[in-house]
Amino acid sequence: MKPRKRIALLGSTGSIGRQTLDVIAANPDHLEVEVLTAQNNAAVLIEQAKRFKPNAVVIANDKQYEFVKNGLSTEPIKVYAGMDALSSVVKMDSVDLVVTALVGYAGLKPTISAVESGKTIALANKETLVVAGALINGLARTHAVSILPVDSEHSAIFQCLAGERHNPIEKIILTASGGPFRGKKRADLEKVTKVQALRHPNWNMGAKITVDSATLMNKGLEVIEARWLFGVSASQVEVLVHPQSIIHSMVQFQDGSIKAQLGLPDMRLPIQYALTYPARLPNTFPRFDFARYPSLSFEKPDLETFRNLALAFAALERGGNMPCVLNAANEVAVEEFLNDRLTFLGISKVVEQCLAKLDYVKEPNLEDYVETDKLARIRAKELIG
Amino acid sequence: MKPRKRIALLGSTGSIGRQTLDVIAANPDHLEVEVLTAQNNAAVLIEQAKRFKPNAVVIANDKQYEFVKNGLSTEPIKVYAGMDALSSVVKMDSVDLVVTALVGYAGLKPTISAVESGKTIALANKETLVVAGALINGLARTHAVSILPVDSEHSAIFQCLAGERHNPIEKIILTASGGPFRGKKRADLEKVTKVQALRHPNWNMGAKITVDSATLMNKGLEVIEARWLFGVSASQVEVLVHPQSIIHSMVQFQDGSIKAQLGLPDMRLPIQYALTYPARLPNTFPRFDFARYPSLSFEKPDLETFRNLALAFAALERGGNMPCVLNAANEVAVEEFLNDRLTFLGISKVVEQCLAKLDYVKEPNLEDYVETDKLARIRAKELIG
Repeated sequence: MKPRKRIALLGSTGSIGRQTLDVIAANPDHLEVEVLTAQNNAAVLIEQAKRFKPNAVVIANDKQYEFVKNGLSTEPIKVYAGMDALSSVVKMDSVDLVVTALVGYAGLKPTISAVESGKTIALANKETLVVAGALINGLARTHAVSILPVDSEHSAIFQCLAGERHNPIEKIILTASGGPFRGKKRADLEKVTKVQALRHPNWNMGAKITVDSATLMNKGLEVIEARWLFGVSASQVEVLVHPQSIIHSMVQFQDGSIKAQLGLPDMRLPIQYALTYPARLPNTFPRFDFARYPSLSFEKPDLETFRNLALAFAALERGGNMPCVLNAANEVAVEEFLNDRLTFLGISKVVEQCLAKLDYVKEPNLEDYVETDKLARIRAKELIG
Repeated sequence: MKPRKRIALLGSTGSIGRQTLDVIAANPDHLEVEVLTAQNNAAVLIEQAKRFKPNAVVIANDKQYEFVKNGLSTEPIKVYAGMDALSSVVKMDSVDLVVTALVGYAGLKPTISAVESGKTIALANKETLVVAGALINGLARTHAVSILPVDSEHSAIFQCLAGERHNPIEKIILTASGGPFRGKKRADLEKVTKVQALRHPNWNMGAKITVDSATLMNKGLEVIEARWLFGVSASQVEVLVHPQSIIHSMVQFQDGSIKAQLGLPDMRLPIQYALTYPARLPNTFPRFDFARYPSLSFEKPDLETFRNLALAFAALERGGNMPCVLNAANEVAVEEFLNDRLTFLGISKVVEQCLAKLDYVKEPNLEDYVETDKLARIRAKELIG
């Protein structure tokens, strides 16, 4: 039997983090927890650490350090605090695979650190590739690191590419549920509340990604993520609205053949695939049944209403630091929307204006990305005012 | 550059045979014709031979030998006649790959001969595996021969299994258009004519397979074919009616993930895949467009109306020579239906009665299959006549 994979799980208290622990718990012969980290949720982190007995935990918000330290005082678990500690723990020799389930730009530096230490990455933090795809891909090549997607769409594409790496991709078809406001026009969306935006029809996810799904920015970020994961151009990625979220995405090869991966919307499946790849381990997840889905439907996305998706394509085509601007402006705008300081339609306006106003950097290095992210956030906050 | 694959095409004048030649003609750097064979259609065989310049041709109906010989007298092409010649030409050293596009039981002996000579098989003659799957699989193992499916459904499954051979199959979902009589009940089918039965909604195919599609026997034969190609049991094969014929079939793995292959109904794609496997060569076939198929639908097959499908599952579960009986009885019954000597509903009655009356042989050898085929045909003719 193979040794168990030892996992550092960054962002263990969020939606993906918790489901990752479910998968690990169900496969104790194959997987074990080496590191757990959380941003703020110290109570859940303590509880998870007591159950999974990692070697170390990190609480990124260092004001919570004493609380976590005390909570784990009877356990032989190292406790660290602060964002920089995230970048240190992923380097531990005892870590085989790093799951990056942090939210947003915060995933960038720990991911770089993990790649530089040669760790396999299970990437659940799409913003890392959105912000700095060229940089991360270059590092991954240098350090011969595999980046395994966790996003259901990219996992679907990755699954469809098994055994096909020698066959050029003609097109990637990225499916989108369309979110809670599918079929609506801009006039319908003027008074949308955050409660409505947080009501996703198919997926139960964190707040940030759920709002991004409602604005279609999530799909835009995924288009950019797909460009870097699979080496395709923006024009080779097609977004297809598929309200049932059963077909998770597709690949069309140069002979015209299309392969799709499908199943119930259940993040545990792509998480498990990334953790156990290339093996598929048996599990007890509910199975998809066509009898309950007699029809699967498809439509083009409405780029007039959902401006964010068009902005993401435009940022990807301009390249350089523009996807970093897009992401930073969006992170601020979504946060302000969730704080009731920006309207739903205001989100894409902020993103659009930041893209128009920030200086273009053609081949950014890490410092350029950090600077761009900072300036875009300042600009976005000014615009929201 | 790789040397060109030299192809023996058995059944070059039928629907699959002609489309195979289209694929070869479009890929002259990769594929060339070494042998062409036809059952009766001497005129088309001569025309094809003049165009593709094979080393040899075979006309199975030896009454046509002189006609073909004279027609090709100015060409440096060897001309043979008779069924036994099919089994000889596939053994030629200059043949790399044998496409078995003959109709029905006639494919059995030439396929055995090709496997025994170590040739890669592109199998377009499902009846070979239906009749004698255990025997063929054993020979293929002994001679380390690959059997590559050409049937669109089995090609879809084979494509989904690329890179997944280490992952156990939980279930195969074999899609079926449902044929021209989908939704009809037995009372509706009492007076069906052959013109109606030959009007397939999606696929343009030969007469035998088109009638088999109308009765769902084609899907039954495919279930048995899948059992032997992919090493699954009858209970692991599910038939799903999908009227648009876009998803060509699916595989569900033991983690619950389902992979599907899809595209327009165009046999040239699976033919090309079998000929160029594992490469996918670029082509100009029309591409599938979701905008033209906004909805894909699915339903369970009606086993009460389409008895043949239930009979095929039963024959597979009994095993031994029963699938051979099923196939022989069906071949006779379809021929008699096309000759207006049997009703549409009579087809499954003949098959059912033959299955009930023929002696069961648990582990048949080739002679047993030959004998079973002969006796089942006699019995079927008695029942009809």
